[in-house]
Amino acid sequence: MTDPAALIADMTVRARHAAQQLAATPTRVKAQAVSNAAEAIRAATGAILAANERDVAQAQEAGLSGAMIDRLQLNPARIDAMASGVEAVAALADPVGATMDERTRPNGLVLTRVRVPIGVIGIVYESRPNVTADAAALCVMAGNAVILRGGSEASESNRAIHAALVAGLAAGGLPADVVQLVPTADRAVVGAMLKAEGGIDLLVPRGGKGLVARVQAEARVPVLAHLDGINHIYVDRSADPEMAREIVVNAKMRRTGVCGAMETLLIDRAYPDAPALVTALRDAGCEVRGDPGLSAAIPGLPVASDEDWDTEYLDAIASAALVDGVEEAIAHIARHGSHHTDAIVAADSAVAERFISSVDSAIVLWNASTQFADGGEFGLGAEIGIATGRLHARGPVALEGLTTYKWVGRGTGQVRA
Amino acid sequence: MTDPAALIADMTVRARHAAQQLAATPTRVKAQAVSNAAEAIRAATGAILAANERDVAQAQEAGLSGAMIDRLQLNPARIDAMASGVEAVAALADPVGATMDERTRPNGLVLTRVRVPIGVIGIVYESRPNVTADAAALCVMAGNAVILRGGSEASESNRAIHAALVAGLAAGGLPADVVQLVPTADRAVVGAMLKAEGGIDLLVPRGGKGLVARVQAEARVPVLAHLDGINHIYVDRSADPEMAREIVVNAKMRRTGVCGAMETLLIDRAYPDAPALVTALRDAGCEVRGDPGLSAAIPGLPVASDEDWDTEYLDAIASAALVDGVEEAIAHIARHGSHHTDAIVAADSAVAERFISSVDSAIVLWNASTQFADGGEFGLGAEIGIATGRLHARGPVALEGLTTYKWVGRGTGQVRA
Repeated sequence: MTDPAALIADMTVRARHAAQQLAATPTRVKAQAVSNAAEAIRAATGAILAANERDVAQAQEAGLSGAMIDRLQLNPARIDAMASGVEAVAALADPVGATMDERTRPNGLVLTRVRVPIGVIGIVYESRPNVTADAAALCVMAGNAVILRGGSEASESNRAIHAALVAGLAAGGLPADVVQLVPTADRAVVGAMLKAEGGIDLLVPRGGKGLVARVQAEARVPVLAHLDGINHIYVDRSADPEMAREIVVNAKMRRTGVCGAMETLLIDRAYPDAPALVTALRDAGCEVRGDPGLSAAIPGLPVASDEDWDTEYLDAIASAALVDGVEEAIAHIARHGSHHTDAIVAADSAVAERFISSVDSAIVLWNASTQFADGGEFGLGAEIGIATGRLHARGPVALEGLTTYKWVGRGTGQVRA
Repeated sequence: MTDPAALIADMTVRARHAAQQLAATPTRVKAQAVSNAAEAIRAATGAILAANERDVAQAQEAGLSGAMIDRLQLNPARIDAMASGVEAVAALADPVGATMDERTRPNGLVLTRVRVPIGVIGIVYESRPNVTADAAALCVMAGNAVILRGGSEASESNRAIHAALVAGLAAGGLPADVVQLVPTADRAVVGAMLKAEGGIDLLVPRGGKGLVARVQAEARVPVLAHLDGINHIYVDRSADPEMAREIVVNAKMRRTGVCGAMETLLIDRAYPDAPALVTALRDAGCEVRGDPGLSAAIPGLPVASDEDWDTEYLDAIASAALVDGVEEAIAHIARHGSHHTDAIVAADSAVAERFISSVDSAIVLWNASTQFADGGEFGLGAEIGIATGRLHARGPVALEGLTTYKWVGRGTGQVRA
């Protein structure tokens, strides 16, 4: 068994070297290599399925839940979708090399701020093996080398996908070390990645709350992550009732397990028919837990506990409260929100703009469902994740969020006085 | 004595509240308030000088070095310069509210990415009391609340400057809590700030290497900092000798103690007159330590040790080496540099562009002195510091670096299919 720190040190050195080569690689070469990788994944369908069968057999033996096994399991359609996802990344506009800013100083020095790759990105993820392909494709297309550490349940599948991916990228002329897969299931390797200061420039955890919380608590390298999506919809007195009903039901019930799902409904005390909104949610199969006022007004509505207001259910459950207009809604969100996605339904644009400027979330929506919190829906292409931190990138993080910039100054012999 | 964690928790709650008010404050109100603060500092010159005398007396009693006492000491001209610095910040363009991106989705949802303040910024700094004024002005002008923790040697001066500043800001209608000064010299408060996750959104250390290293090692909140400026100049065979000499001497000797000073000179083995460059540095009063080849060629040139290549002298000392062209220069910088500022002197533009695209530093310069590494010289106005990390902001960090963004979506009832 290799020492985890030594293993990661070696992988990061090789990744840095590959990243340096990749940073200077033109867009068309990167795009062709990523397309090749998609093709290679398709061509390796048989080998990937065989590897996946071994993972699934092991998971069944270990008694993993049906839901976990479903997330793990691949079939030809899922592999084809994975390859199509990689192909879509190859078609994205390349942010690298774009000039963000250009200025000529009085002394003649020409300064440009140019987008460059971040460098070496680490991805720590759980059982879904498709992350191996899609996260790697995004990192490489943005000019970064990537070190992948997948879940041990999917290790055979990940190895097979990684082998196909790297073969495709190498056929396109990229160094094999642009995508490296951690070759051991030793959990200490995650700790070594979290401490790889100077080796890993950005770490992206992809998985459940336990994983993300551990990464955020222990990391000494920068992390791009979101822990919670405690998203609110505030329905103002000026809202169109039908629009409000449609948005609220969609935001909660379209898919309850996504991070953009509504968890708390705030209804203006002056809204004409609060019970109708709650009933619409309940009719759609949602359990609603109300504040005392709402519960008193609606027969059989259970009263929410204090914890409900801070809970991301990721299930067909919502909390709901009456508030005194937009200001109390803003205050509630400031206290209980997770800075992910919050929305207002209102016809009054002054109220909506007040909400927009005062709610401090990565995404603030007016008259639209919170389920739009998604890089694809934003027209950004595939996303590596949604960030709820405040620095570098907020909201859906796609190719641009996987880049940084440098300042370039071109002079003619300028010295400083 | 208050519990440091409780003290910081209370200060961050009040800062968050002030930041929420400030985020919605129009530019002209912020600018007027910051101007008022400058005027208030000027009006309080007497009180600030009296406080500063007490600090200086205490410092002399404690046996602080003359250099430290000079950094600590104020006089009417220094206070006037401090006020002028604050006035200059009030005149800067406000980044908050700028639209970075706007797109209408096929479903009619209009998405804009808008610059917003970061929120609550912590500044930990050492003895120079002017940081109290200039860092606070920058943070407030960018819409942030700030918590200042100055050095204990300057505590009386900082208190007097802070009182004037806050009185001026309050006269302009801003909440007093937009600028808070930690009221105790207890060093445990720094630890509490470093751990104030969710309370402090960004921590900026301003001071010596010891402070910055401690902050980077212990912080659980995001940090914007630079530790080292191990800056290189590579003189290519194609360089104009006179230009090379002027740039090298300026980059090292204009001010040796600044983070943009050159520390290592790399000379192309095919450059016609390497000894002349070294002699020019030595004639300007610089001690030069050469690699064996250079030392053999130049009488009396001491040989550099292995550590020299990784040393930020911040003094009239430089290391110098011969390299085999631009590729070896790039490799040397990749190995020994600190990603701060590196420069090439060359007439050959293909070589220069190769250097620019391959050197992974916040600032890369062609035919210009590394001493231009400065927000003012970049035309960005005053800077809070120079960042050598890779995320959020690189190089000189001014107002824009003290902001982030949010996504705003304005719809007409869109729900997700």
